[in-house]
Amino acid sequence: MQNFNWQRTDLIDESEEVVVHQTKEQKEKLEQSSGIQIEDRNAGRVKITDVLVDAEGEKQIGKKEGQYITLSVPTLTLEDRDGFAQLEQELLVNFKKMHDALSWQEDDKILIVGLGNRTITPDAIGPYLIDHLHSLDVIDEKFVMYAPGVTGQTGYETGEFVAAIAKRLQPKLIIVVDALATRASNRLCKTIQLTDTGIHPGSGVGNQRQEISYEMLGIPVTAIGIPTVVDAPVLIADAVETMLRSIAARVAERHKPSSKLSLSSWQPDIQQELDMSLVQPIFGEWATWSREERQQLFEETLAGAHTQLMVTPKEADYWVDRYAKLVASMLMNWASDL
Amino acid sequence: MQNFNWQRTDLIDESEEVVVHQTKEQKEKLEQSSGIQIEDRNAGRVKITDVLVDAEGEKQIGKKEGQYITLSVPTLTLEDRDGFAQLEQELLVNFKKMHDALSWQEDDKILIVGLGNRTITPDAIGPYLIDHLHSLDVIDEKFVMYAPGVTGQTGYETGEFVAAIAKRLQPKLIIVVDALATRASNRLCKTIQLTDTGIHPGSGVGNQRQEISYEMLGIPVTAIGIPTVVDAPVLIADAVETMLRSIAARVAERHKPSSKLSLSSWQPDIQQELDMSLVQPIFGEWATWSREERQQLFEETLAGAHTQLMVTPKEADYWVDRYAKLVASMLMNWASDL
Amino acid sequence: MQNFNWQRTDLIDESEEVVVHQTKEQKEKLEQSSGIQIEDRNAGRVKITDVLVDAEGEKQIGKKEGQYITLSVPTLTLEDRDGFAQLEQELLVNFKKMHDALSWQEDDKILIVGLGNRTITPDAIGPYLIDHLHSLDVIDEKFVMYAPGVTGQTGYETGEFVAAIAKRLQPKLIIVVDALATRASNRLCKTIQLTDTGIHPGSGVGNQRQEISYEMLGIPVTAIGIPTVVDAPVLIADAVETMLRSIAARVAERHKPSSKLSLSSWQPDIQQELDMSLVQPIFGEWATWSREERQQLFEETLAGAHTQLMVTPKEADYWVDRYAKLVASMLMNWASDL
Amino acid sequence: MQNFNWQRTDLIDESEEVVVHQTKEQKEKLEQSSGIQIEDRNAGRVKITDVLVDAEGEKQIGKKEGQYITLSVPTLTLEDRDGFAQLEQELLVNFKKMHDALSWQEDDKILIVGLGNRTITPDAIGPYLIDHLHSLDVIDEKFVMYAPGVTGQTGYETGEFVAAIAKRLQPKLIIVVDALATRASNRLCKTIQLTDTGIHPGSGVGNQRQEISYEMLGIPVTAIGIPTVVDAPVLIADAVETMLRSIAARVAERHKPSSKLSLSSWQPDIQQELDMSLVQPIFGEWATWSREERQQLFEETLAGAHTQLMVTPKEADYWVDRYAKLVASMLMNWASDL
Repeated sequence: MQNFNWQRTDLIDESEEVVVHQTKEQKEKLEQSSGIQIEDRNAGRVKITDVLVDAEGEKQIGKKEGQYITLSVPTLTLEDRDGFAQLEQELLVNFKKMHDALSWQEDDKILIVGLGNRTITPDAIGPYLIDHLHSLDVIDEKFVMYAPGVTGQTGYETGEFVAAIAKRLQPKLIIVVDALATRASNRLCKTIQLTDTGIHPGSGVGNQRQEISYEMLGIPVTAIGIPTVVDAPVLIADAVETMLRSIAARVAERHKPSSKLSLSSWQPDIQQELDMSLVQPIFGEWATWSREERQQLFEETLAGAHTQLMVTPKEADYWVDRYAKLVASMLMNWASDL
Repeated sequence: MQNFNWQRTDLIDESEEVVVHQTKEQKEKLEQSSGIQIEDRNAGRVKITDVLVDAEGEKQIGKKEGQYITLSVPTLTLEDRDGFAQLEQELLVNFKKMHDALSWQEDDKILIVGLGNRTITPDAIGPYLIDHLHSLDVIDEKFVMYAPGVTGQTGYETGEFVAAIAKRLQPKLIIVVDALATRASNRLCKTIQLTDTGIHPGSGVGNQRQEISYEMLGIPVTAIGIPTVVDAPVLIADAVETMLRSIAARVAERHKPSSKLSLSSWQPDIQQELDMSLVQPIFGEWATWSREERQQLFEETLAGAHTQLMVTPKEADYWVDRYAKLVASMLMNWASDL
Repeated sequence: MQNFNWQRTDLIDESEEVVVHQTKEQKEKLEQSSGIQIEDRNAGRVKITDVLVDAEGEKQIGKKEGQYITLSVPTLTLEDRDGFAQLEQELLVNFKKMHDALSWQEDDKILIVGLGNRTITPDAIGPYLIDHLHSLDVIDEKFVMYAPGVTGQTGYETGEFVAAIAKRLQPKLIIVVDALATRASNRLCKTIQLTDTGIHPGSGVGNQRQEISYEMLGIPVTAIGIPTVVDAPVLIADAVETMLRSIAARVAERHKPSSKLSLSSWQPDIQQELDMSLVQPIFGEWATWSREERQQLFEETLAGAHTQLMVTPKEADYWVDRYAKLVASMLMNWASDL
Repeated sequence: MQNFNWQRTDLIDESEEVVVHQTKEQKEKLEQSSGIQIEDRNAGRVKITDVLVDAEGEKQIGKKEGQYITLSVPTLTLEDRDGFAQLEQELLVNFKKMHDALSWQEDDKILIVGLGNRTITPDAIGPYLIDHLHSLDVIDEKFVMYAPGVTGQTGYETGEFVAAIAKRLQPKLIIVVDALATRASNRLCKTIQLTDTGIHPGSGVGNQRQEISYEMLGIPVTAIGIPTVVDAPVLIADAVETMLRSIAARVAERHKPSSKLSLSSWQPDIQQELDMSLVQPIFGEWATWSREERQQLFEETLAGAHTQLMVTPKEADYWVDRYAKLVASMLMNWASDL
């Protein structure tokens, strides 16, 4: 009964290599050594991380060669119309740029695939996108649109589905929209990832879902992903990390003349170097372990039950609906200029 | 945008008092002192906990006076037809017993209310129940059925809705079906709670949802609740508790001739007394704190973000559908004998 | 299994008395004698018929005392954005005028009821309206909104439902939105009727659905109705009428120097006096009968089967969605000015 | 905005040739001359018409070479559990027989395609079937299931969709389930047609939907069709026919000592020879015209509006749900024996 198949590590900037090298020098070093270029910029309230991976980089970090653009509005809330508007605008700008090289003929087709399971709220962005595109008054004739469902519902691999339609339709471009898993709960529903590398289920996870990519299909595949869930063990390890670091930061502050300490962020403050031995008296030796070591400990001791759980915002239905509309609106705007 | 309002502590046997007193003697003592009677029994694979709270008990544990029956199949899986069949059978037996005293007239009505938000998968049991009852061929004429939605959708308190209909319809009985939150993730979707006390949102949680009860409406209210979510901070504290206890148990085992240690349970083994100082070298003083102290620490350091998250099974859609059908089937069977 | 209960003669301007008196003098005579005032006007492409019925008129034509405003765009198609925009604009203008006398307090509530059966496409305007209102970003706090479903689904009369909520909520105004039946298939989905008289199921039809009106509830009830179906026998009689009249018109034309004959209209041309004996050679004595006599003949000879059928546009799903959005948008605009 | 594409003359036994030759001798003559074999039989309450068309027959009546089995329960109502049970049983018997020749390997796949538009109630049988198959506990691993939607929603021909999936999946069998149009309103929702010839949109109707058949795909295609709509002009012509014939029958009866006249049937009684000149005094010369001539007259004089209308049972939602469940249940039973 395989009806749910989150891709666990889809966000490029959660790759260990990208995450770890955060200072300017480190980034430059990473780029020289590993074939990865990272550029951070801001457009209004939107934080944009633009990552280019070449063949060498693919070997280094196991992420497919290509471009990965991550757009975030860290302070986004459901009521934040301005935030959503800026996010849609930047998505459009970057989506346009990514497809500039394509030259369009009269009868070129675009295959839009809304992945995911309509009956699982946080996985429904893809299907809802197709619904929204359908209900818009003017359907662009370039679009062929499907929400193929999940293997547990259809008995057929999603990758096979896309390959079958693509082979017969021969579209100029395939656009795949999907919900993602993240390992930072504060990014849930606040981030969009855009990539020209398609969909690549992690090889190690035992995920049999087929890759959807230019390499497989001979047609460019652009993937738009929005993180809407985090796995339970990831959440737990992150929470412990955050707790330990915030305690350590407080202890460290005591000796400094600093005024105030912001604890507003859930995600561990990665840049800051903290002496974790400060909290050893209370939390023992394990406070000095790495986050990964602690997550491994949880995975071992918590046995199997927790792996069946997902963590998602309580208002997932509103978030999913907003993002489906945002992507639909962006695609219509983009297509109207082709 | 209040569209989601899990009742956090609905399961009676998660009340601190009920949980803590687990040995036979402790139970007897609890009953004498606090006006709570607890009876555990098994019916096939179904574990049944029957709790009677009287006026004195209500003061002691803050749970409404009345009967609370909890039915669990700890090993239940989605494929386990036998488990679901046994659970439905025991639910029917206990539901019948609870309503034995009612004598039915020809035109007595029963108001069935499916609470919850249809667009949030784990909250959709109530609405789906109403759908299933509707699609059954023979609608019992005794039934009046509504899925009133949530306040964020309708602009009206659910309690007000039920009061309005009840006042005009004057049903003989109100049956309220709802999804619940639990603080033990291993009980998610494996437990049904049946109570004649209706719905009582926790007083301290700032939950404005009105009580649905005999006291408010002058009509008996039976509530059927199924735990489908756990709050993120609860999950985290539970996970740490489980981890610490399983390490401590392992350390303790080293000195004993015991053969094997089962780590299969996620929920802390409450019965067993463990010397937590055994793990102090690694986990520090913290390991000897109570579970509640640790949860409080997480709540303080994790700021606000985590309170917006819920944890639910990845296959929530299947579970929710199964329970909606199970309750619909039980109710039809029960009504056919009236 | 009563799940569908079209109100057969809801459009005021299909009342026999209103229809028959079409010339200016006839209208004046009708107004003097029967307490009915009829005013026709055009606003852009929107044809507006404004009918005022007083107590005397209510006795004469069996339509409740009050105001009935019918707005039509006879040439409306699904693609006609301008037509829909004009229709919405005129609906807003007339809706405002109808409620001018109400003065609003801070916490006055408006109960919006979307009648109809969500699972029958042409009956789904009411439920879809509630969906659209819910998905709009800013829910007006004045609104309390329900799609109560139909008696076959809930086991409860819709009128009872509205009465129950209205009694407890005590709204300042009740707005009821419903799909209607028409007896002119060319008006299907091209007309909106607005009335301050509420919902009054025809007395003779054996329709048990309760009236929803100021008289019953003590609260003003405004009804917005959109005709989306026509009954099969009505369609048949109309079709025969149209066929006979168009043949007669053709025959009559032969003797006149007229150039062209428009047959574009499906609805019989009511104004024109035609000598139906012209077609008697082909169609017999029958051609000279009245439309009503012919319909009665069909009803007698066609036995029961046809009464179970409804006639609706093939693209009912699009029409229903458009009107639900149109009414939602109008209501939001109106409420933003209160 | 092509979202609705009823196939107008799909029921084989509504082909003029099949309908007209109703006596035993006529049938034999038809079979000899035209390569059509017709066999009528009854199985309990189910009327079964089994039509075999060979290459010669295909030329004669324009229906594809192959087998057409029509199963009807003329007295079927929604509450008639026995009727539905018999219909399902006979469908299973005939479905089995039709596929007896196929020998199954371990990993053979069956592609099940639920055609139609989910948002148009009478067209939703196909999509609902897929839903029901999905919600059944044990999904047969042989099944690959899709409800591809309609061209207006997806931008892609349904035939292309099926061809694309079929080409890649290479199923052993394709099963296509669809709602049909009939020209006899008394057959609405009371008939199932089973054929091994696939889906062949009428050539003359300007219907661009691609054929789904063995000839096109190289894979056997079985189609299961249920008539749920009738076109408005067909209904009108049928109603006039019925009316005229029932009057003529009554007039004829006057001169006979017959006891009783059944008018229960809506469909014209085709077997009986009636002297239509009996009604000429009232209905004129046109009473003696053929049904087809009269329909043509309606089509000419009613212009375009009526062609946009469909006629369907008022309780279409219940019928569609019942048939979706019936076909799902039959398919599961059949597959369990493979």
